Amino acid sequence: MIGDMGRWEPNARGRLEQAALELFIERGFEQTTVTEIANRAGLTQRTFFRYFADKREVLFWGQGALQDLLLGAVASAPDSAAPIDAVTAALQAAGAVLQERREYARQRQAVIAANAGLQERELIKLASLASAIAGALRQRGVTEPAASLTAEAGIAVFRIAFERWTQESSQADLPHCIRESLEELRAVTAGRTVPAV
Amino acid sequence: MIGDMGRWEPNARGRLEQAALELFIERGFEQTTVTEIANRAGLTQRTFFRYFADKREVLFWGQGALQDLLLGAVASAPDSAAPIDAVTAALQAAGAVLQERREYARQRQAVIAANAGLQERELIKLASLASAIAGALRQRGVTEPAASLTAEAGIAVFRIAFERWTQESSQADLPHCIRESLEELRAVTAGRTVPAV
Repeated sequence: MIGDMGRWEPNARGRLEQAALELFIERGFEQTTVTEIANRAGLTQRTFFRYFADKREVLFWGQGALQDLLLGAVASAPDSAAPIDAVTAALQAAGAVLQERREYARQRQAVIAANAGLQERELIKLASLASAIAGALRQRGVTEPAASLTAEAGIAVFRIAFERWTQESSQADLPHCIRESLEELRAVTAGRTVPAV
Repeated sequence: MIGDMGRWEPNARGRLEQAALELFIERGFEQTTVTEIANRAGLTQRTFFRYFADKREVLFWGQGALQDLLLGAVASAPDSAAPIDAVTAALQAAGAVLQERREYARQRQAVIAANAGLQERELIKLASLASAIAGALRQRGVTEPAASLTAEAGIAVFRIAFERWTQESSQADLPHCIRESLEELRAVTAGRTVPAV
């Protein structure tokens, strides 16, 4: 064990993440242990805990960076941008990052969909993201309730777009799905009939 | 204790609910015990458990009836109603019921706002409500993603309206706040500037 301390393992985080996803899909999230994840990745438990606090963290560690990216994009949107356009542009920027990891995103989504506790955690993350976006809009001078409504609308658009992107066999990219989903939200809130896509 | 079995206590549920809310506000949700709630209501623990599985249930038992009311209203909206109008009318019908218990709703909201675990539970309830409403819309022939987007938009509208109704000193009633909140959502999704209310 002493020999392991500080040993550099190439792409340890990525290997652990991949091993964890494979095992979560094969055996289920609850049934998978940290030891099994480390073994599958050819690494030690000690190395696992250098990167992740627990096995759930493997699925959620990227959310902080995603939130930073979103809030930065909302803050730096042109002054002239309408709040919904600032939020949509931010979501599309985040979507472009996720697009690069489509297969990972699909696998992660399948794992979360199969576990009620993970779904709740995802829900809580999205709610706190909506609340952070509303705060960023208020910083831009948007008043309430417009700030919260815009943020909630943005998160709803993102969820629906993300679901379509991960589930469908279509080759549409995530930023495109987000734009389409926003148009659909506009149509449904206006009470217009939504054309089949 | 035997003498207590089956004894009829007038409005036991209401007394327990009121006692629980008072104690949750005075001491915090975590610090309050079922025994204290029963004592405050002048009833026994046994009576408490005849009505509620645990102290958290005191805050959430009404949600099943609320969901039934909402789904019934969506199902029975005129065929000609746009999905968003069917959902808004249903939310306003539920809002009219809640309006009758405004003081209770405010106290309940204060208790939930002070406890992260209760906030999560509320969030999960709202998400499952959105999913049930989307199902009721699909039953009306609304396709996806319009059904889910409409349901999510409706829940966002409801949350914002409810917050304003419970927090503000204004005398606006909840169905009115819901209508106003929908108009604001329409304005923000359309990218229009929202007039100050």
